[in-house]
Amino acid sequence: MKKHNFSSGPAILPLPVFEQAAEAVRDFNGMGLSILEISHRSPEFTAVMEEANVLIRDLLNVPDDYAILFLQGGASSQFFMTAMNLLDQDAKAGYIDTGSWSTKAIKEAQAFGTVETLASSKPDNFTYIPKGFAIPEDLAYVHITTNNTIYGTQFKTLPETSVPMVGDMSSDIFSQPVDVSRFDLIYAGAQKNMGPAGATLVIVRKEALGKVKRHIPTMLDYRTHVKKDSAFNTPPVFPIYVSMLTLRWIKANGGIPAMQQKNAAKAELIYREIDRNPMFKGTVTDPADRSTMNATFVLAEGKEHLNDEFMQLCKAANCSGVKGHRSVGGFRASMYNAMEIESVQALVQVMQSFERKFG
Amino acid sequence: MKKHNFSSGPAILPLPVFEQAAEAVRDFNGMGLSILEISHRSPEFTAVMEEANVLIRDLLNVPDDYAILFLQGGASSQFFMTAMNLLDQDAKAGYIDTGSWSTKAIKEAQAFGTVETLASSKPDNFTYIPKGFAIPEDLAYVHITTNNTIYGTQFKTLPETSVPMVGDMSSDIFSQPVDVSRFDLIYAGAQKNMGPAGATLVIVRKEALGKVKRHIPTMLDYRTHVKKDSAFNTPPVFPIYVSMLTLRWIKANGGIPAMQQKNAAKAELIYREIDRNPMFKGTVTDPADRSTMNATFVLAEGKEHLNDEFMQLCKAANCSGVKGHRSVGGFRASMYNAMEIESVQALVQVMQSFERKFG
Repeated sequence: MKKHNFSSGPAILPLPVFEQAAEAVRDFNGMGLSILEISHRSPEFTAVMEEANVLIRDLLNVPDDYAILFLQGGASSQFFMTAMNLLDQDAKAGYIDTGSWSTKAIKEAQAFGTVETLASSKPDNFTYIPKGFAIPEDLAYVHITTNNTIYGTQFKTLPETSVPMVGDMSSDIFSQPVDVSRFDLIYAGAQKNMGPAGATLVIVRKEALGKVKRHIPTMLDYRTHVKKDSAFNTPPVFPIYVSMLTLRWIKANGGIPAMQQKNAAKAELIYREIDRNPMFKGTVTDPADRSTMNATFVLAEGKEHLNDEFMQLCKAANCSGVKGHRSVGGFRASMYNAMEIESVQALVQVMQSFERKFG
Repeated sequence: MKKHNFSSGPAILPLPVFEQAAEAVRDFNGMGLSILEISHRSPEFTAVMEEANVLIRDLLNVPDDYAILFLQGGASSQFFMTAMNLLDQDAKAGYIDTGSWSTKAIKEAQAFGTVETLASSKPDNFTYIPKGFAIPEDLAYVHITTNNTIYGTQFKTLPETSVPMVGDMSSDIFSQPVDVSRFDLIYAGAQKNMGPAGATLVIVRKEALGKVKRHIPTMLDYRTHVKKDSAFNTPPVFPIYVSMLTLRWIKANGGIPAMQQKNAAKAELIYREIDRNPMFKGTVTDPADRSTMNATFVLAEGKEHLNDEFMQLCKAANCSGVKGHRSVGGFRASMYNAMEIESVQALVQVMQSFERKFG
């Protein structure tokens, strides 16, 4: 029996993707070889890379002057690579601090130039997205984390500025349309909406590169990977292949507009129940900031002792991965693209049955 | 029909590993979830990481004061990371230049301290392993590439020195015993003897870390990964899982001594044929340096026009990946641990049939 997988990442992917991926591990495209043993320079895998590239360009309307890269090391490596490549020692960048990942990005960037935190919701445990802050015009870039998995918040509109942005979209890329032209660089660990762990997507405006004066090791210089189409060295073949299958699935299922609609319906369903059910309360203070990807909630006041009981009901109903991040506690329902609304309905039923039993 | 896969990497892995990996993509350990969608902090995956760690420690007799890490970015990222972490600005390291990968390692290290090339076979197109060179005692480390996939050479004995070594063992780790205590750090891209592309093994003496004065980004500091057992951020779950399965297979099949014996038998078979068959000649000038992993050979003088004919015979006999690296041409038979001697016999038969037809 397949579980309802609410894991925050690595996360649910479409069932047909798992089927095709498993088959490719046995025999890839009838080659008589597993996808795990073929050369990354074989025509068969080069075609996979090209298809992934075309799908991303198509789904997100990526302008021609942007390169699409598949790297390794996760968003955590992008925290320093973005600053290393885009922020000169005597330049300034602005960061919006909306959660643990933003905080880490700020820390890593500080080694490379001047970093200004333009706004932060840290004093309120990141329960909202800061708004109305000023963005100086002299910044090299403004960095935002578009969706905060741990705290369940999401930028619903981009900050108003003519300064180019850098966006960590690890947990909401491909879930809604994005105006790529507003960004000099977008990065995303694959392991939520795009694929399994082990690949990192970077979309970068080529003209933004090569402007800093410092030495950059070859593998950390985005230009290396632009020039070699992400095959300067051996790329993570299987994670890229599974990402391509997932992108194909997104396209075949209506593209980004359809994903956005489906995600909105799932979010509405879970948040309606969180607001209605007296056993729970949402953790995000401004409902406008609520993430469509990760709904975070805790037990209502006076009910905190029922944590294990709720988790047991979840388990009995085959809902897995509902536990909140260790730094905030409570519960988190991650509802990435591949999650069907039936799974959210199953969780809502658990919440209602919990109310009947313990309310 | 399964092919005889002589690919240099990503490369052949054991058949049962492909079967188990495919099943885990469908349903991992009966969890009702794919291995591609489970949390890297789940007990099920933590157990995989631990088992991989124990297997490596056991197979290679890794001393207790060494940490075993699973990173990303391939050996190409280790070229600069080793120097960034182990070579202070005012210190010196020695490098042995035995091929393209060594040359790249030298280039990347030069940004971090003084790099001395102690010996090089570059003027002779890397057709042998330099011997008898002096190693100064004041070096931070001596770097060697133990096996050179492109040129088909391999260090059969380690250089005599009391200076700690750094070893790129990407293409021969787990193929023969190694005295880990001679090294401060060993690194290896997984995609030959250990697993699929997307994971990088590092074995490091913990006391060697933290001695350089420069700033190191968190993700590039080995101590980050030592402290967090390779789970500071999301590790490449599936590549690590498949590596663990391969390590299990190595152990179940007699461990490193058995691999070494099998690899020696395969190497003897192919080199005997290369030397016997008048249609071919080996590219390595000193037979003592011939790699047990990658046998490189070209058409004999006057036969060069028969390249396509030989490749066609290979194809007809289901031998794939026999083409030499684009920088040296000719042919290359990579015979990693998972290759059975029957596959080498199949290639030898092709070579003999080629001789009968065109000799």
